[in-house]
Amino acid sequence: MSGNTLKMLSEYLDTSVLVKLKGGRSLKGTLKSYDQHLNLILKDAEELDSEGNSRPVGTVLIRGDNVVMMSPAK
Amino acid sequence: MSGNTLKMLSEYLDTSVLVKLKGGRSLKGTLKSYDQHLNLILKDAEELDSEGNSRPVGTVLIRGDNVVMMSPAK
Amino acid sequence: MSGNTLKMLSEYLDTSVLVKLKGGRSLKGTLKSYDQHLNLILKDAEELDSEGNSRPVGTVLIRGDNVVMMSPAK
Amino acid sequence: MSGNTLKMLSEYLDTSVLVKLKGGRSLKGTLKSYDQHLNLILKDAEELDSEGNSRPVGTVLIRGDNVVMMSPAK
Amino acid sequence: MSGNTLKMLSEYLDTSVLVKLKGGRSLKGTLKSYDQHLNLILKDAEELDSEGNSRPVGTVLIRGDNVVMMSPAK
Amino acid sequence: MSGNTLKMLSEYLDTSVLVKLKGGRSLKGTLKSYDQHLNLILKDAEELDSEGNSRPVGTVLIRGDNVVMMSPAK
Amino acid sequence: MSGNTLKMLSEYLDTSVLVKLKGGRSLKGTLKSYDQHLNLILKDAEELDSEGNSRPVGTVLIRGDNVVMMSPAK
Repeated sequence: MSGNTLKMLSEYLDTSVLVKLKGGRSLKGTLKSYDQHLNLILKDAEELDSEGNSRPVGTVLIRGDNVVMMSPAK
Repeated sequence: MSGNTLKMLSEYLDTSVLVKLKGGRSLKGTLKSYDQHLNLILKDAEELDSEGNSRPVGTVLIRGDNVVMMSPAK
Repeated sequence: MSGNTLKMLSEYLDTSVLVKLKGGRSLKGTLKSYDQHLNLILKDAEELDSEGNSRPVGTVLIRGDNVVMMSPAK
Repeated sequence: MSGNTLKMLSEYLDTSVLVKLKGGRSLKGTLKSYDQHLNLILKDAEELDSEGNSRPVGTVLIRGDNVVMMSPAK
Repeated sequence: MSGNTLKMLSEYLDTSVLVKLKGGRSLKGTLKSYDQHLNLILKDAEELDSEGNSRPVGTVLIRGDNVVMMSPAK
Repeated sequence: MSGNTLKMLSEYLDTSVLVKLKGGRSLKGTLKSYDQHLNLILKDAEELDSEGNSRPVGTVLIRGDNVVMMSPAK
Repeated sequence: MSGNTLKMLSEYLDTSVLVKLKGGRSLKGTLKSYDQHLNLILKDAEELDSEGNSRPVGTVLIRGDNVVMMSPAK
């Protein structure tokens, strides 16, 4: 991440995001922290498997190399 | 990315692009930001699965290492 | 890991954490050490396979590139 | 890429090349740009799947880590 | 590996360890050497496949990127 | 590649080599160029699939991270 | 590879070693060269597939990232 991309990423802070991981898992939660590798910390997160089932996981740290993409949660 | 490649990439800014990801997923949207790792931000994006089904995802950040290729959306 | 992310990570020290690894394995134990690659040392750890079976492994060092995510153990 | 390899690569510029990607996909087009990571831009490109079916994709940017090999198109 | 993690790792030297590798293989032996990439040398090692069968391999050098985790052998 | 390894590699220049790639493909041709990442250029190359079928590909550039091993062609 | 590990590795030079590769292939031969990435050159090598079949390959250069482990050949 650099320049414009990091700036746009900062607008996601403290908002609810949906993070898709390699292998089909997704996480939904409030973005509390990120860095240039896209290591993320989500608060009040819930894990969604590929069948759509949800499970609360609390505060979770995600290693950036597992992330496919991140978008606002609706 | 470097030199000529980054320059040609800049011509895609604010145009509609099709991004193919590893694993068969594609995303279509307006390119708002990129960096040298090919981390991308697409606006008004929609996700296309390998069967061609479309789903709106809004503004989405894609981690560059998932990208296979990017071309103008037709 | 950098800045804010490392700071929040330090709050997990000496608490019980759940670490999910690539390939479906999980480990639960007390976080004793970490570094910026997310190499971890867990004490009194137990390994959980994808079917939920548990097996004690004592003190275990995990190579960071296997980590998907880490959250507080409940 | 370095030294001799980059020099020989420059001879492919503005000629028609065949690029094989990891996972069985190939692309054929005119090489317009490359860098030391083998990030490529092809013009008037067409995508060939593993069954040999062709589909035009226009100007396409390929992320270098997906490339297996590149040769002159016949 | 860095700081605290390397220090705790040094306590494993000359003790019997169990090393789990990507792909289901494990090795058990006396840890004689390690470095910051977790490249390891085990002495009097035996290889254990995923079915639990054991086979002596003598002194073995393991490339660090294959390591999932390491714990004391019991 | 470094030191002795690069020196031994230089002895393969302008000789016929067999290159095995990840995923079961092999290439046979005259080694015209290499660098420290094992990016290779082969001339008068032919591609061999895992069933042993051969297909001429002319001059081919191979991205080094796909290479498993290289030996003299017999 | 660094320090002690490289030193122990040097003791394998000009001896017969068994190298296990990712994907189940093994090579047996006399170690003639290595570097810090574990790029290896074996002389009078033979390739062993996962069924135990052997095939002579002469002098072979192995790209280090394919290596799982190396031990003395018995």
